[in-house]
Amino acid sequence: MHRQAVVRARLALNLKGLTYEYVEEDVKNKSPLLLASNPVHKKVPVLIHDGKPVSESQVIVHYVDEVFADAGPSLLPADPYERATARFWAAYVDDKIGAAWRTMLFASDMNEKVGGATQAIAALETLEGAFKDCSKGKHYFEGDSAGYMDVVLGGFLGWFNVFEKMIGVKVLDATRTPLLAAWGERFSAGEAAEGILLQDVDKVLAFLKAFFA
Amino acid sequence: MHRQAVVRARLALNLKGLTYEYVEEDVKNKSPLLLASNPVHKKVPVLIHDGKPVSESQVIVHYVDEVFADAGPSLLPADPYERATARFWAAYVDDKIGAAWRTMLFASDMNEKVGGATQAIAALETLEGAFKDCSKGKHYFEGDSAGYMDVVLGGFLGWFNVFEKMIGVKVLDATRTPLLAAWGERFSAGEAAEGILLQDVDKVLAFLKAFFA
Repeated sequence: MHRQAVVRARLALNLKGLTYEYVEEDVKNKSPLLLASNPVHKKVPVLIHDGKPVSESQVIVHYVDEVFADAGPSLLPADPYERATARFWAAYVDDKIGAAWRTMLFASDMNEKVGGATQAIAALETLEGAFKDCSKGKHYFEGDSAGYMDVVLGGFLGWFNVFEKMIGVKVLDATRTPLLAAWGERFSAGEAAEGILLQDVDKVLAFLKAFFA
Repeated sequence: MHRQAVVRARLALNLKGLTYEYVEEDVKNKSPLLLASNPVHKKVPVLIHDGKPVSESQVIVHYVDEVFADAGPSLLPADPYERATARFWAAYVDDKIGAAWRTMLFASDMNEKVGGATQAIAALETLEGAFKDCSKGKHYFEGDSAGYMDVVLGGFLGWFNVFEKMIGVKVLDATRTPLLAAWGERFSAGEAAEGILLQDVDKVLAFLKAFFA
C-alpha cells in the first residue's frame, strides 16, 4: 500500500530525475531501520540521504528540492510570493483533503465515508479556483512543469480511484472540477507518476479489507 | 487577544528587524479587508506586503525570511539538512502542541483541559531532546540567534502562562523540561518578544470568559 505521503516523496524524487532505492515497510511489523530513522512518528516515508534520515512528506519535498537544487527542475517557484502561494495551498490540501481522506479510509460507517467524500469534493472545488489562478492557463499548478503543489495533491490521486470503488462517489469529477480532472489525467500519465499511483484498485481494496479485518 | 499564529508572524517580523503596521481584528465582526485578503480561511494572521496578502503563520514566516533575505538574520538555517530538521520539528509543534492548545482552550470540561495539558507536557518532553540536539548547547533552537523553530514554538509561550492560571498546570516546567524552560525565559525577555507574548494573563482570561459566554 502506498500512503499518499509516500507517493509525494517518490513523485518529488522522480520529478527531480533522481534515482533511489525504494524499500517497502510492513506497517504491522516495522523494521529496526524505520524505528531508528523516525523515532518520533515511526512512520513512512523516510528519505535516507548521505546516511541521514528526513521524515514528513512536505519536509522531504522541500529537502529534495533544496539539496538537489541543480538536479531537474525546481519544485518550488523562484519568486517568494509564488512560493508562499504554493505553500498556502499545500497546507490547505493537507488540512482539508487530508481530513477527508482519513474519514473516507477509516470511518466504518458508509454514511460517514460519503460525508468525507463530500468534504473532499468541496475542497477540490476551492482548489479548482486556485489551479486556475496558479497555473495561468498552463498544465500544472506552478505553470509549464509539475512542482510542489502538483506533488502534494498528486499524492491523493490514486486514492480517489480507490474511494470511487469503495464509496461509489467520484471525488475528482470532470463536471464539478474540470480543470483539476484534466490535470489529474495529465499528471497520472506523466513519467514521474509511472507505477506509483495505486493503479491496481482491486489489489488495494483487498489489502485494506485484510488490514482492517 | 493574540492567537499563537499571530504571535509567530510578529516574532518573525521583529527578528528580521522590520517595521510594520499592526491592525487588530474583531473576530466576531471581521473586517472587509480580512475577508478579501484571506477568503479561504477568513483568519488572522494575514501579512499584506506590496499590496499582496500572505496567510497561514508558517507560510508567513517562510515568506518574510525569503523576501527580506537581506534584512536581519536568516530565520531558517542555510544547510538543507538543518532546514529539514527545523521544518520537521515545526510540523511536530503544529501537530502536537497545536492539538493540545485547542483542547486546553476550547474543551468545556476541566478534566479534558487537564488532559490537553498532559499532552502538551509529553510533547514538550520530546521537544526538550530536540532542543538539546538542535541548539548544540547554544541559546536558541538553531544556535546563537533565534530562528524558525523559536518563532513556531514561541507563539505558544504566552499561552502557557494563561493555561497555568486557567487549568492549574504548569505546562512548561523547569523540572520536567529545564532546557526549554530556560529557553522560554530567555526568548520572552528578548527584544523580538517585547509586548506581544500575552503578558497580561488576567486580561486574556477575562477576554476568553466574555468570548465563550
